[in-house]
Amino acid sequence: MKALVYHGPGKRQWQDKPDPAIEQPTDAVVRISHTTICGTDLHILKGDVPTCEPGRTLGHEGVGVIESVGDGVATLSPGDQVLISCITSCGRCDYCKQGMYSHCRDGGWILGHRIDGTQAEGVRIPHADNSLYKLPDGLDNESAVMLSDILPTGHEIGALNGEVGLGDTVAIVGAGPIGLAALLTARFYSPARIIVIDPDENRLETARQLGATDTLTADPVDAVMEMTDGEGVDVAMEAVGIPETFDTCQRIVRAGGHIANIGVHGTSVDLQIQNLWIQNVTIRTGLVNTNTIPVLMRILESGGVDAKSLITHHFKLDEIETAYDVFGDAARKKAIKMILTA
Amino acid sequence: MKALVYHGPGKRQWQDKPDPAIEQPTDAVVRISHTTICGTDLHILKGDVPTCEPGRTLGHEGVGVIESVGDGVATLSPGDQVLISCITSCGRCDYCKQGMYSHCRDGGWILGHRIDGTQAEGVRIPHADNSLYKLPDGLDNESAVMLSDILPTGHEIGALNGEVGLGDTVAIVGAGPIGLAALLTARFYSPARIIVIDPDENRLETARQLGATDTLTADPVDAVMEMTDGEGVDVAMEAVGIPETFDTCQRIVRAGGHIANIGVHGTSVDLQIQNLWIQNVTIRTGLVNTNTIPVLMRILESGGVDAKSLITHHFKLDEIETAYDVFGDAARKKAIKMILTA
Repeated sequence: MKALVYHGPGKRQWQDKPDPAIEQPTDAVVRISHTTICGTDLHILKGDVPTCEPGRTLGHEGVGVIESVGDGVATLSPGDQVLISCITSCGRCDYCKQGMYSHCRDGGWILGHRIDGTQAEGVRIPHADNSLYKLPDGLDNESAVMLSDILPTGHEIGALNGEVGLGDTVAIVGAGPIGLAALLTARFYSPARIIVIDPDENRLETARQLGATDTLTADPVDAVMEMTDGEGVDVAMEAVGIPETFDTCQRIVRAGGHIANIGVHGTSVDLQIQNLWIQNVTIRTGLVNTNTIPVLMRILESGGVDAKSLITHHFKLDEIETAYDVFGDAARKKAIKMILTA
Repeated sequence: MKALVYHGPGKRQWQDKPDPAIEQPTDAVVRISHTTICGTDLHILKGDVPTCEPGRTLGHEGVGVIESVGDGVATLSPGDQVLISCITSCGRCDYCKQGMYSHCRDGGWILGHRIDGTQAEGVRIPHADNSLYKLPDGLDNESAVMLSDILPTGHEIGALNGEVGLGDTVAIVGAGPIGLAALLTARFYSPARIIVIDPDENRLETARQLGATDTLTADPVDAVMEMTDGEGVDVAMEAVGIPETFDTCQRIVRAGGHIANIGVHGTSVDLQIQNLWIQNVTIRTGLVNTNTIPVLMRILESGGVDAKSLITHHFKLDEIETAYDVFGDAARKKAIKMILTA
């Protein structure tokens, strides 16, 4: 089969690879029908993720059809159309029993990282019963791909970790794909106001289309404090992953408020605890567990979230190298999520 | 009357002051029978709290008898024996309605800070209906003083903010008065293990007497990781207020764990978010709300907490300057809480 292979910092190739095969009784092999590219794939390509070794097929999102299953797979059969979770989980270790699939002792984020991923014609999925989700008939496959990672991450690490509530004022710092997914999913909880902050006016235009009530390009701290009568916001979401945007969050969060860190950080940040100790704030970090995939799938089925609004580009799977070029220049190309179809 | 008055950094005096009087209809005047000294009083005396102006009577903890009440006070009468909350709260502003008395729009921590406090023969308590608690007959008054601040702070900002749960491993960094109060109240939730960390062996001996299962004086990060099979602790409580102890907490907290910051910090800290972003951790800060005083009073009545174990020294109220000298040298004098009796 063909696969998009990482060959060390800056190097990738759409090339031949051996077909995936069942290795453990709990494995399934899935023929990919749709996949996408994540910001994390770009991080790997930059060399930021040393645990991902050259030779690895990238990708941790996708939809496909089961080709074969191991003897230990109980709930899935060849021919089933499935969503692939970006998180592999055994379902029986201590972390899985707490719903913390992100830290599964025999899984977590391994797809397209420590084992070959979904940017390929086929992929082996370990612990298939717990890591694949049967797709309901009639669900739009392109929208479903948004359930692999981006929507659960926005929901769990943004909206739920930020404890977005009815009537809240929410600020989302960063209007890239994950900030926009946080925006879409924060809306489930009916905040009164969602302020999106990003230097790029194109992205803010998209944010307004997706439901942002206010957008800001510059001097966000002063502007947010003015917009909130000097009180700050109930929820501040960090959706970039650099000290500057974390700092914005800690300066705009109100007493009793929540900071949800969604960004992937490469360096430490200066926590202003000399101000925050008395402010009764909560700061949460996290890798997605994807344990809200089932509820998000129901919401998607019922029309409660416009997942398609995140999709900006379409390519055939064998055009993936071009897709990477576009996604690598996402702000200028107005790219959010791209769908690659087999 | 006599009162302990702050006269600027390093200066205090037990001196004459006008008797307190009702100023607002919701005030009560309380004759102090018992009070104590808090680490925060020492911070004020060091000049660390510029919002506390010279001329202020210090103290925010105490028990006493109501002498007079304003016309708007509904639930209290002269002669009632009451506990004074360190937090004054109107009970009707937006923060109070959320139970966040710490940020009451017309209160919060004002006693012995922005208005005259409890280290005196008498004190005016604003919003008396919500800021005083009638003491049940027969409750030991000295133990009751521990309900003004130290036990609710340990409970709310330590045990509750840390989400201590059944069977958890808890680390408390700092075995001063507040660390020990966190230890006493964390035990309500039946953790399996409580590791207390402090350079002072005397304090650790006290911690062991109060229920610490393990104590450490040095190299706490390596030692805790070894004690927990490299996993770290479910709950890390910062009970000192310096970068070094916060750093210990962030290095020993396990994936999915909680950091409860109890310490009062004067400088920022370097948050290792490049490691923590993927660890699904929660960090909480806070000033006590004292909204758990009623439940703590029931626990104290039922014998469920040995509040007296925190009391190491007794003085007459007019010996308070000596008491300050002892408390200022607390580690050497093995002082935790001192009771000053009128």
